[in-house]
Amino acid sequence: MKTLTVDVLVLGAGTAGLAAYRAAKGEGKSALLVEGGPYGTTCARVGCMPSKLLIAAAEAHHSVHRLEAFGIDLPSLPVVDGTRVMDRVTRERDRFVGFVLDGVDRIPESDKIKGYARYLGPHLAMVEDHTRIEFRSSVIATGSRPVLLPFLKAAGDRLIVNDEVFHWSTLPQSVAVFGPGVIGLELGQALHRLGVRVRIFGARGISAGLTDPKVKAMAERLFASELPLECYAKVTHLERRDAGVMIEWTSPDGQSHQDAFEWVLAATGRSPNIEHLGIETLGIEVDQAGVPIFNRETLQCGDQPIFIAGDANADVPLLHEAADEGRIAGVNAARFPRVAPGLRRSPLAIVFSDPEIASVGQRYQALDLDRTVIGEVSFEDQGRSRVMLKNKGLLRVYVDLPSGDFLGAEMIGPDAEHLAHLLAWAHQAQMNLKTMLDMPFYHPVIEEGLRTALRDADAKRQEWVHKKRLAESALH
Amino acid sequence: MKTLTVDVLVLGAGTAGLAAYRAAKGEGKSALLVEGGPYGTTCARVGCMPSKLLIAAAEAHHSVHRLEAFGIDLPSLPVVDGTRVMDRVTRERDRFVGFVLDGVDRIPESDKIKGYARYLGPHLAMVEDHTRIEFRSSVIATGSRPVLLPFLKAAGDRLIVNDEVFHWSTLPQSVAVFGPGVIGLELGQALHRLGVRVRIFGARGISAGLTDPKVKAMAERLFASELPLECYAKVTHLERRDAGVMIEWTSPDGQSHQDAFEWVLAATGRSPNIEHLGIETLGIEVDQAGVPIFNRETLQCGDQPIFIAGDANADVPLLHEAADEGRIAGVNAARFPRVAPGLRRSPLAIVFSDPEIASVGQRYQALDLDRTVIGEVSFEDQGRSRVMLKNKGLLRVYVDLPSGDFLGAEMIGPDAEHLAHLLAWAHQAQMNLKTMLDMPFYHPVIEEGLRTALRDADAKRQEWVHKKRLAESALH
Repeated sequence: MKTLTVDVLVLGAGTAGLAAYRAAKGEGKSALLVEGGPYGTTCARVGCMPSKLLIAAAEAHHSVHRLEAFGIDLPSLPVVDGTRVMDRVTRERDRFVGFVLDGVDRIPESDKIKGYARYLGPHLAMVEDHTRIEFRSSVIATGSRPVLLPFLKAAGDRLIVNDEVFHWSTLPQSVAVFGPGVIGLELGQALHRLGVRVRIFGARGISAGLTDPKVKAMAERLFASELPLECYAKVTHLERRDAGVMIEWTSPDGQSHQDAFEWVLAATGRSPNIEHLGIETLGIEVDQAGVPIFNRETLQCGDQPIFIAGDANADVPLLHEAADEGRIAGVNAARFPRVAPGLRRSPLAIVFSDPEIASVGQRYQALDLDRTVIGEVSFEDQGRSRVMLKNKGLLRVYVDLPSGDFLGAEMIGPDAEHLAHLLAWAHQAQMNLKTMLDMPFYHPVIEEGLRTALRDADAKRQEWVHKKRLAESALH
Repeated sequence: MKTLTVDVLVLGAGTAGLAAYRAAKGEGKSALLVEGGPYGTTCARVGCMPSKLLIAAAEAHHSVHRLEAFGIDLPSLPVVDGTRVMDRVTRERDRFVGFVLDGVDRIPESDKIKGYARYLGPHLAMVEDHTRIEFRSSVIATGSRPVLLPFLKAAGDRLIVNDEVFHWSTLPQSVAVFGPGVIGLELGQALHRLGVRVRIFGARGISAGLTDPKVKAMAERLFASELPLECYAKVTHLERRDAGVMIEWTSPDGQSHQDAFEWVLAATGRSPNIEHLGIETLGIEVDQAGVPIFNRETLQCGDQPIFIAGDANADVPLLHEAADEGRIAGVNAARFPRVAPGLRRSPLAIVFSDPEIASVGQRYQALDLDRTVIGEVSFEDQGRSRVMLKNKGLLRVYVDLPSGDFLGAEMIGPDAEHLAHLLAWAHQAQMNLKTMLDMPFYHPVIEEGLRTALRDADAKRQEWVHKKRLAESALH
């Protein structure tokens, strides 16, 4: 057994861990990076990048459907070659993973340890049974893994989690997707658009980060119009059979259904990897799920020299947040006990479905509806969207009534990823309705739809201001 | 002959004129709207909307080329039905024009006069020979028309201007496009992608609003790689022949070429409609082209009660600017002599080619290069762009060295229309590099390419700051 002494111990070499390690070194401290699994980030290996690659192929295939409406005939339909589709996905994915691995390779060998680590106290950890590490502070960046709902286990060898989709060497015949959230919608729709027979199951409607009932209802309507969506289903039976997996379920109208699928894909969320870490030895509080309670601005757990970043803290499991959190945690771990708040950006979340889903700033569920005005636009008649035959969706913007400040937005619609950036920047710059309406909007662009929503909020707010004045003058 | 008296006389019922009329009425003044040509704006009838409709069809057709690289086979190529393509273009175009006409219909008949108007003095005008109008102030919003270079007239009945493309009931066999500017590139590329044999001619390279030599060179390289582009050609002969039009030209290498086309399309810019208006009677100064000299903030010509808005002032012939200018001119005409600056937004220009071209804020040619740092990103290796097989282009951002303020950008690349909005808002909000780099960037998105360019500028600027400090400390 070896004993090492280090300033900052980082558990996990994913996006957050790598950022924490680099930040700690950048502060002039010694640091160790411990990784039990394969190197390469969740994002590059099984997350953002491969899913966007699959989606790109699916979009290309799907876009031929619009040809006829434009006046272009297709004498024969395109043929999806599943092997080649998955080959490009994995080849390009491996290229992105390669960049991450190159970065890991450039880290001195003496700073890297392979193996699973376990804390023995706030200054001591063991990596398996081979290395004992004494540290001044530590960053937990152990990531997350897909959640498996127990009843799905009956699918046996035909059950896969979303991470494993990217192990496929070709496309399957049929897939039952469980979980109409970010991952389920992205993968489910992409597979459907590549000709796989897909049915998406859920119990409580589309989640995907939407909390606005009108936007959520629009999302459910749009997805249900394209593919079999059972997002209020009660699954009554699920069984591995010769041909695959038989599923029986009851729909909200009380009717029973059954259907067989080659695969069952679990996309029912991710769970932080925080068990088996010896967190109970650290003298920090944990929540009901066992996740350490931490400060969002500093990433510190209680008053201990322990920090938690990325998917492991189960806060916002998004790449750009993981990178920010890793950096903040690494700097604070290095400077401990001089811990300071780091830069947290305005909330921004995007689902790369079609239409895309996005939310910015404060979500609907966090609003004080008594002092909020909501402006909205349907993309049905939005000029440019209609020109491109992408005129589907709904955008709702939330504005503080007294001040006119822009609070947030939820949307499903064309180019939502770009509208969401514009809105997130406006949110972080603390713009109000007037500032935003004074901004340039070109013509003809999707952004003009956003302007319609802002004008709607502005008109409603002017009316509120007017009524308030009338009421006040009546009082005097 | 009728004599009318009015507060504000507006010449031209296009985007600027309608805005001016409405603004003047909104100020509680009487107003008259005089239109000589057809109602409906340049934008809706022959500009933004129909060109975007043609482009949408072209993009849909072109996108099938990407299928193979994604692993999808197309047993037979799509067949463009020119009649149906043009039918959708004109049908949807007519719908947009319909909205404009509905707006015109809602204007009281007594406020509208049909006919061409001519000023007889700063308070008197004649509409043809039927109506004499005494006015307190007036807005010139007479729009623009395509420029025809004299040598193109040899094409006779086979010469059309870009406005007339939308009269076609089907697609032609071949077109020689003159003018590699905004309109020439948009229409030329769209026709090419719809299977029309196109060659784009120009004498001084691609214009399209680009002034940055590196971005311009990239644009020329990208367009030339897709279609026959002769943007440094010297046309030596052009003649109407039985089959169409024969063109002879010399390329920069001194070689002579000839080719025949069914049509010659003139897309060599637009010229303001300011002749025959009796401007010489108004007591205002004009520039060499005969365009009144006016104040950009107030739209006033000299100190007269005369204002000029939209394409007629030959400043920024863009719809959103025309609408702003019309509104400002209308308000100021109504309030004359209390004339005040109106809201002018940060410059934003977009070409809807593929890749798209855009410029924001200060252009390269207006920079003081001694105090500017330029950050850049090539889209060749940009993650998301590559995922979608849209990894072509170059973005250059201009930053003030001493302050770090964002000055402007020029670009050609994927989703440039959206990046340009983000940058134009940042420019108008007077953001600097640090503020912009603190903003959220999701993953994986095209916006991350922008971040690369900003980081590049930031690194270069930090180096400059460092060197400056060293030099200063050496002096002391």
